[in-house]
Amino acid sequence: MAYRVACTVSYDGSAYHGWQRQPRELSVQEVIEASLQQLHNGAEISIYGASRTDQGVHALGQVFHFDTTIDIPIERMALAINTYLPEDIFITEAKVVEDHFHARKSVLKKTYCYKLMVNQYLPHERHRMGFYKGELNLESMQQAIKELIGTHDFSAFTQHATYDSYDRTIYAATLTKTETGLELIITGSGFLRHMVRIIMGTLLLIGSNPSVKIKDILASKDRQQAGLNVAPEGLYLLQVDYE
Amino acid sequence: MAYRVACTVSYDGSAYHGWQRQPRELSVQEVIEASLQQLHNGAEISIYGASRTDQGVHALGQVFHFDTTIDIPIERMALAINTYLPEDIFITEAKVVEDHFHARKSVLKKTYCYKLMVNQYLPHERHRMGFYKGELNLESMQQAIKELIGTHDFSAFTQHATYDSYDRTIYAATLTKTETGLELIITGSGFLRHMVRIIMGTLLLIGSNPSVKIKDILASKDRQQAGLNVAPEGLYLLQVDYE
Repeated sequence: MAYRVACTVSYDGSAYHGWQRQPRELSVQEVIEASLQQLHNGAEISIYGASRTDQGVHALGQVFHFDTTIDIPIERMALAINTYLPEDIFITEAKVVEDHFHARKSVLKKTYCYKLMVNQYLPHERHRMGFYKGELNLESMQQAIKELIGTHDFSAFTQHATYDSYDRTIYAATLTKTETGLELIITGSGFLRHMVRIIMGTLLLIGSNPSVKIKDILASKDRQQAGLNVAPEGLYLLQVDYE
Repeated sequence: MAYRVACTVSYDGSAYHGWQRQPRELSVQEVIEASLQQLHNGAEISIYGASRTDQGVHALGQVFHFDTTIDIPIERMALAINTYLPEDIFITEAKVVEDHFHARKSVLKKTYCYKLMVNQYLPHERHRMGFYKGELNLESMQQAIKELIGTHDFSAFTQHATYDSYDRTIYAATLTKTETGLELIITGSGFLRHMVRIIMGTLLLIGSNPSVKIKDILASKDRQQAGLNVAPEGLYLLQVDYE
């Protein structure tokens, strides 16, 4: 009897060309599918991820689903899959879900985090944090971030992708000073390609030039008005929430 | 005119067989000496480090010194050396010191940190934190750590090395619960080989069996009484202090 399983997975994105399977480059999806194939004695299993994280991006709470008929108690499923996974990918939870559950289509909201070193380069963090050198006006940045909350057309905050609609809803966004720099945590209905990284880049632009306004950039719908697309290694998919 | 320079250096130890130069294996010392040789147009420069960190151990504040006659303003020295260094080694400060200064012999105290994931494996932290699975009595561990303070014979807390004296003084030691596990910060006059890692391993032993006592292990001078030597990747040389 076939049933659907949803897994929560953490990974270090450093060694992968992103989540999505592609020819000639190693992806997280491909490695997980290969481990599921081993677990299923060679039968091919397709997985569906909540988010197509880019090359170098990490995850603490990516979610994917797959269908199976395998006879393994669900409480041992995560351990069983982990047996075949390399040490940079780790399933933290597996549960049986209803047949209509879809890891991407059923998403209610997603939370990302961006970690940035500011004026202090730490070699052991170089694959896990972005780096920025320069003076920043934190207050302007924290003020600006509030203007992201709500439903907006985020055309100015994406690149290399087209969508039917560029409207997305941001539920919460905070920028916090950490021991070594800054941390952005942002929750939204969904995110356009590179959107979180361009938001971080735009906050840095505002931090060095407080006359730049989020409101104006949103209204312009012009990618050139927003800030740089900061490095992927500081980005983490923290959590995916479902109904 | 020759003068002596002391540098503070951060590095990610993952790719190196420790600090100390050795035949056939790549060390941090060798890579820094090679960069200094380039800076000095091929002349060989020897450096002297404060601490011989082991394979996989990281540093945020390792110190080394060297003698030079090079005509570079000291405020540009760190930048000049960094030009020739790979991205996992970074000089944060260079200053001229007196000729009798010695990075190892002049040490007043050293501070190390050990970062541990507890019951939560995070793939992107696997080269930067140790991992422990099991229940821990934090209160017993925090109580036990106080017994390390002061001057003691630490024979039970070392291995693979011999010393004239096994007496070391611990000035401060704290064990803190973090978001993902535990963090030990310890400051002492000096540390025997593997001493910080064995202290961490002993605290874990006490956390799972509070009847084990630091006092008894110190008195035994017996390596077998202390805990395991935990993994090197969680260890950081944080700071070296001089008079």
